[in-house]
Amino acid sequence: MTGVRLLTFPTAGPDDTSALRLAAEHGVDPTSILAVIGKTEGNGCVNDFSRTLSAAAWEPHLRPDAVTVFSGGTEGVLSPHVNLLIADDDSGEHYDRGMVAAATTTAPIPLADLGREGQMDAVRDTVAKMIADLGVATSDVHLVLVKCPLLTSTDITELRSQGIEPASADTYESMGRSRAASSLGIAVALDEIDVDAARDALAGRGTAWSNRASASAGAELDSCHILVVAESPNASNPLRALHTEMKDGFDLDALTDAAALIDQRGGTIRQLFVKAEADPSGSIRGLRHTMLTDSDINSTRHARAAVGALAAAVKGDGAVYVSGGAEHQGRPGGGSVTFLYELGDPT
Amino acid sequence: MTGVRLLTFPTAGPDDTSALRLAAEHGVDPTSILAVIGKTEGNGCVNDFSRTLSAAAWEPHLRPDAVTVFSGGTEGVLSPHVNLLIADDDSGEHYDRGMVAAATTTAPIPLADLGREGQMDAVRDTVAKMIADLGVATSDVHLVLVKCPLLTSTDITELRSQGIEPASADTYESMGRSRAASSLGIAVALDEIDVDAARDALAGRGTAWSNRASASAGAELDSCHILVVAESPNASNPLRALHTEMKDGFDLDALTDAAALIDQRGGTIRQLFVKAEADPSGSIRGLRHTMLTDSDINSTRHARAAVGALAAAVKGDGAVYVSGGAEHQGRPGGGSVTFLYELGDPT
Amino acid sequence: MTGVRLLTFPTAGPDDTSALRLAAEHGVDPTSILAVIGKTEGNGCVNDFSRTLSAAAWEPHLRPDAVTVFSGGTEGVLSPHVNLLIADDDSGEHYDRGMVAAATTTAPIPLADLGREGQMDAVRDTVAKMIADLGVATSDVHLVLVKCPLLTSTDITELRSQGIEPASADTYESMGRSRAASSLGIAVALDEIDVDAARDALAGRGTAWSNRASASAGAELDSCHILVVAESPNASNPLRALHTEMKDGFDLDALTDAAALIDQRGGTIRQLFVKAEADPSGSIRGLRHTMLTDSDINSTRHARAAVGALAAAVKGDGAVYVSGGAEHQGRPGGGSVTFLYELGDPT
Amino acid sequence: MTGVRLLTFPTAGPDDTSALRLAAEHGVDPTSILAVIGKTEGNGCVNDFSRTLSAAAWEPHLRPDAVTVFSGGTEGVLSPHVNLLIADDDSGEHYDRGMVAAATTTAPIPLADLGREGQMDAVRDTVAKMIADLGVATSDVHLVLVKCPLLTSTDITELRSQGIEPASADTYESMGRSRAASSLGIAVALDEIDVDAARDALAGRGTAWSNRASASAGAELDSCHILVVAESPNASNPLRALHTEMKDGFDLDALTDAAALIDQRGGTIRQLFVKAEADPSGSIRGLRHTMLTDSDINSTRHARAAVGALAAAVKGDGAVYVSGGAEHQGRPGGGSVTFLYELGDPT
Repeated sequence: MTGVRLLTFPTAGPDDTSALRLAAEHGVDPTSILAVIGKTEGNGCVNDFSRTLSAAAWEPHLRPDAVTVFSGGTEGVLSPHVNLLIADDDSGEHYDRGMVAAATTTAPIPLADLGREGQMDAVRDTVAKMIADLGVATSDVHLVLVKCPLLTSTDITELRSQGIEPASADTYESMGRSRAASSLGIAVALDEIDVDAARDALAGRGTAWSNRASASAGAELDSCHILVVAESPNASNPLRALHTEMKDGFDLDALTDAAALIDQRGGTIRQLFVKAEADPSGSIRGLRHTMLTDSDINSTRHARAAVGALAAAVKGDGAVYVSGGAEHQGRPGGGSVTFLYELGDPT
Repeated sequence: MTGVRLLTFPTAGPDDTSALRLAAEHGVDPTSILAVIGKTEGNGCVNDFSRTLSAAAWEPHLRPDAVTVFSGGTEGVLSPHVNLLIADDDSGEHYDRGMVAAATTTAPIPLADLGREGQMDAVRDTVAKMIADLGVATSDVHLVLVKCPLLTSTDITELRSQGIEPASADTYESMGRSRAASSLGIAVALDEIDVDAARDALAGRGTAWSNRASASAGAELDSCHILVVAESPNASNPLRALHTEMKDGFDLDALTDAAALIDQRGGTIRQLFVKAEADPSGSIRGLRHTMLTDSDINSTRHARAAVGALAAAVKGDGAVYVSGGAEHQGRPGGGSVTFLYELGDPT
Repeated sequence: MTGVRLLTFPTAGPDDTSALRLAAEHGVDPTSILAVIGKTEGNGCVNDFSRTLSAAAWEPHLRPDAVTVFSGGTEGVLSPHVNLLIADDDSGEHYDRGMVAAATTTAPIPLADLGREGQMDAVRDTVAKMIADLGVATSDVHLVLVKCPLLTSTDITELRSQGIEPASADTYESMGRSRAASSLGIAVALDEIDVDAARDALAGRGTAWSNRASASAGAELDSCHILVVAESPNASNPLRALHTEMKDGFDLDALTDAAALIDQRGGTIRQLFVKAEADPSGSIRGLRHTMLTDSDINSTRHARAAVGALAAAVKGDGAVYVSGGAEHQGRPGGGSVTFLYELGDPT
Repeated sequence: MTGVRLLTFPTAGPDDTSALRLAAEHGVDPTSILAVIGKTEGNGCVNDFSRTLSAAAWEPHLRPDAVTVFSGGTEGVLSPHVNLLIADDDSGEHYDRGMVAAATTTAPIPLADLGREGQMDAVRDTVAKMIADLGVATSDVHLVLVKCPLLTSTDITELRSQGIEPASADTYESMGRSRAASSLGIAVALDEIDVDAARDALAGRGTAWSNRASASAGAELDSCHILVVAESPNASNPLRALHTEMKDGFDLDALTDAAALIDQRGGTIRQLFVKAEADPSGSIRGLRHTMLTDSDINSTRHARAAVGALAAAVKGDGAVYVSGGAEHQGRPGGGSVTFLYELGDPT
C-alpha cells in the first residue's frame, strides 16, 4: 500500500530536472518518487528525441523501480512540465481514504509481439498483478498510464530478415498499434471488456475501449512502463480521482461536467490526463475535419493542440497532460479522461 | 444600405462551390452575394494554394464588386466551410434594426508599401469611406474583415533590384507585417486608437489593437479585400453581432460570457470570427508555450488548432471562422472575436 | 501515328499558364498539345492543392483528349515548370525515326479497386491498347507516365459504409498503393514482367518493377491519365529517348553514364523523368537513412529533394521532372529514369 | 602541435556512443579525442533535441577541453554518424607534412551580442589565437568548424525585459544571425576579408564570405565550440585537406573537380564538410526555386537534402557532413566545402 501525493513543475527544456530541487523544498526525497510523468516538447511521433533526452536526464536520479512516462508533443497552448507521483504514507491528516499508486516495468516486448496479442497479454497480466498487489477493487482504479515501444525502420528490417512480418511496416503507424495493444490489455485488466472483445478489437473487428487507459509510445524504451493510480480505503490523504470520457474532439461538456462535480465535492483540480485523436471517420458531429488528410502535420499533433486548449481552459493553465493517439482509450474520435483533484482540510 | 443575411455551408474541398446550388434552394441569386468568407484546408501560410484554388473556383460565379476572403488553415477540429453574406433588404419581418454590410477592394498595394504606412493608410481610408457610405456609427461596426497581400521571394527580389528594402525579407514574416498594417488601419478607422498610436505600433513602439479587425494574408491577391459588418437602425432583419476579445490563447471565458449574453438576448449563435496567435512573450499565464520554437509547424497553425477547439465547443460544430496571426487584432497573445447571432421571430 | 516535340517552360505559380503564350510564339496551337506534364510546388502528398489548381488552370485551354499529369513537390533545387508534348508530324527534316506519343484516360477507377488488381488491369489494358494503336514495339517505348487517384478520408468512410475494406485506411499510404497498381500494370503491358509476378508483387510477395513507368497519385482525379512515349521508325523528328534505372537514392553514375551515351550520340538532353523513393529497408549502401522515421516530413519529399539535386546537376538546371514514390518503378530504393534528348541537324 | 587522424562511425541514434568502443578497437584512448563532429537526425532547427541528446551522451566520455559539434539534419540520403578527430603524433610513417587540429570553447556569448559584432569579434580573436598556437600559416588552414548558440523565445523575452532588442525576434532566424557572426569572424581571422568588409556584411551591406568556415547553431550551448583543421610542415601523417566552394545548390562540378584533384594526388576521400543554403535570391541559374516560400519545411532542411545527395554521390556513402545555413560560408546560394583525404603509404 503506497499512499501518494502529486507535485507538478514546469520545465525549461526536456533535460530540465530542476523539479528535483523544487520538490526537495517540499521535503521530497528523490527515492520517494514513484513515477515521473512528463509532457516534452518534441513532435510526439517516431523521431521525438525530447522524450529520450528527458528519460536520460531523469533516470539517473530515480530509484530503479520508479517509472518514467514522457509523452511528446506540447502543441498549441500546452506547456512542458513534469508530474511527480510521490510515495507518502504520512499525510498527517485523517481522511477516510486516499490515493495509492504502483509503478512497474514489463519484460521487454519481443519485436514480433509489438502491437499484437503478446503485448496485449503482457500489459493485461502486469496490470492485473499491480491491482492485486495494491489490494484495490478494479472500480477504484482511475488511471492506468502506459509508455510502450514502437517499431523503427531498423526493427522492421530486422524482423523481416527473420521472415516475420511486423504489425506495421510504417514506423508512425506502429505507434498506434502499440498503444492499441496496451490499451486493450488495460481494458481487460480493469474488467471494462472481456478478452474476446479485446482480441476482436485488436484485429480490427468491432470497437472496444477503456476510459481509464492512457498509452503513449516511444522509441526510447523496449518494455512497457506502467503506472496504476487508484483510490483506496486503506490510505489516508486528500488526493482523489474521477474519470470520464470525451465523446469527440471538442466535447468540452465532458470536462466542465467533471469540473463541476469536483467543485461540488469541495475539490481543487490538480491535473487532467486526457487522450486525444482525430476521429477516424474523417468527420466530427457530421462535419468533415482534415486531420487525416494533412500530409504536413500528423493527426496526433492536431488532436493534442485542439484538446489541449480545452483541458488548459478547464484547469486554468497549460501544464495539462494531453497525449495523442487514443486508440481504444475512449471511443473512436474521443478519449479517456482522468482528473486528479485534492480535497481541502477534512476537519 | 444593404441589409444582409448569412448562410454557412460545409465544403468538400477548396474548389467546392456546391454552396451556390444549396443557397439557390434558399432562394439566393448569386448576384446577391456580397462576400464569400471561407476557411480552406491549406497550411494558411505562404504556399497555401487552397486559398488560390477557392478564389479561382468562386470568382467566376460572383458579381464583380463582391469580395472573397479565404483564410487557410483548418487545423484540429476546424471544418472547411464557406460563409455567404447575402444582400437581403426584404426580410419580411419587422425588426427595429438589422445587420448591414459593405464589401470593396482597395487599389493594388505597391510592393514597397506592403506592411508599411502606405498599406495602413489605404485600408484606413477605404474602411472609413465604407462606414460613411453605410451610414452607420463606428460603434455599430462589429467586424472588419480584410484579406491582404504578402511578399513572395519573387517580390522581394524585385523590390531589391529597385534598391528598395522590403518590410520583411522573410516570406512568412511578411504575412504578419501585412496583417499588422491592415489591422492598425482598421483600428484608426473605427476610432479605437489614433493615428500616432497606430504609427508607433506599426514601427514596433508600444502596443495597440482593434477588437473588431480580422486580417488574413495570401499570395492570391495584390490588393486588399475588405468587408465591413455593422448593425443599423435603418435595416430590419434578425441578424445581430457582438464583439469581444480573447485575452490569451485559452480564454474560454471570453467566449462563454458572450454566448451567455447572446442566449440572454434570445439569440442563436450563427458564426464566430476569431483571431488567434501564439503569445509573442513565449508564455501564457506565466507558463512557457512552445509555439514560437517549433521549427516544424508555424505558430499560426498551432494557434488556430488551439483556439479552434474552443470556438467549435461554444458553437457546437467545427465550421467556425478562426484565423491565425492576430497582430494588432486583440491584445498580444489574444485575439479579436465577433459573434454573429440571430434573433427569433419578433412577434 | 503522332510525331511529337517537347517544349519546357518555367511557371511562376501553379495557376500560371503563360506557357501557352510562349508556346504560341513557337508556332504551337493549343489544340496540338497532347499532354501537359508539370511539376507543381505543393507537398506532393494528399493535401496538395497545387496539382488541382494547375489542372483547373490548364484544362479549359486543352482539347478534350489531352491529358494533364501534375506531380507535386519541388523540394530542394527543383524548379516548378511544365513540359508540353506537342503533336508535330511536320518536322521538316529527314530523320530515320522519331518520337511519338499517345495520351488517354481510363474509365474512373472504382474506389474498391484502387490500389488493387482492378486498377492494375485497367492500366495494363489501356497501355497495351495505346501501344498497339501507336504501332510501335514494346521495346521502343521509353516512358509511360500515369497520374492516378488516391483515397481521401471521405472515400475511406464511404467504402467502409458499404462494408468494403479499402486497400489502405491511411490516405498517404493509399497514394503508394495506387502508384504500385499502376506501375505493375505498365510493367506487364511492356513485357517487363508477367501477370503472375505483377499479382504477387502487388500482394507484397516478391519484388518486380518497370524501369519505364512513372506514376504519381493525386486527389484531383478519379481515373488514370496515361501518356505513352516511344520511338517509331514511322515518324521523322530529332527527339529521342533513353531509359535506365537508378539503383539507389544517390546513384549518380546511372545518370552520368546515360548523359555520356547521349553525348556520344550527338544528342542534347532536353528532359529527365526520374522516380525517387526512400529505400524501404531503412538503409542505403549499408548505412542507415532517416527518411522513414521522420514524422515531420514524408519520405517522398526527402527523396525528391535528394534525387532532384542529382538530376538538376546532370541537366544543368532545376526544371527536371523528379517524382516521389517509386513503388515498382525501378528496384526498391531506386527509381526508373527516362531521358528525352534531341539530335542535331541530320544533314 | 597536435597531429591528428580521423575516424568516422555510423550511429544508431543520437545517444549512440558505440563509436567509443569501435575506436578503442583501433587503439584510440578517449582522452586523445580532440573533437566529435556529428550529424544527428533532428530537424536541425530551433527545437532539435537530437543535438542536445548527443552532447549529453558524449560529453561525459571526453576530456574537458575537447569540443563537440553536433549538426542536426540528415535529410534525404544523409546518414547519421560521428567523426572523431584524434590526437596522434605517432603516425609511424615519414610524411613531409601532416594534418593538425586545435579545439577550444569561447567564453559564453552574452545574449545581447548574439548575431552581432560582439560574437563576431569573439570568434575572430579565438580563431586567430588558435592558429597562432598551432603555428601554421592561415593559408594552411582548410576548415574552421563552429558550433554557436541561438536565441530561444525565453532569451528574447529576457533581453527585452532588459530593454535590449535582440538581433532577431524570430528564433529560427536567430540561428542564421549567429552563423553569420561566427563565419564573418572566421573569414577575418583567415585573412579572407578585412574587418570593415565583415562589419558591413554583418549589417547587410555588401556580401563577404569564407570558403573554409562551417558554422552551425543550436540551443544546447551558450558559448562557441571551435575547431581549426590545418596542414602543417611540422607534423607527419597521411591526412590532407583541400577546400573549394559550391557556387550554387547543384554545383556538382565543384565537388567532382576536387575529387579528381585528390585522385590525381593519390588520395582517398575520407570526409566532406559542406555547407548548404537556399539561394536567397529565390532562384538558381535563372530558374525559381521554392525553398523560401515553403512554410511546411524550413529552407535549411531542403538545402541539406539536395546538397547531401551530391556529397554522398561523390564520397560513395551517405555519412557526409552537410550542414544547413551557409550565411557567409561560401557565396550567397553556394557553400563552403572542405575535403579531408588520406594519402597512401609514402614509401
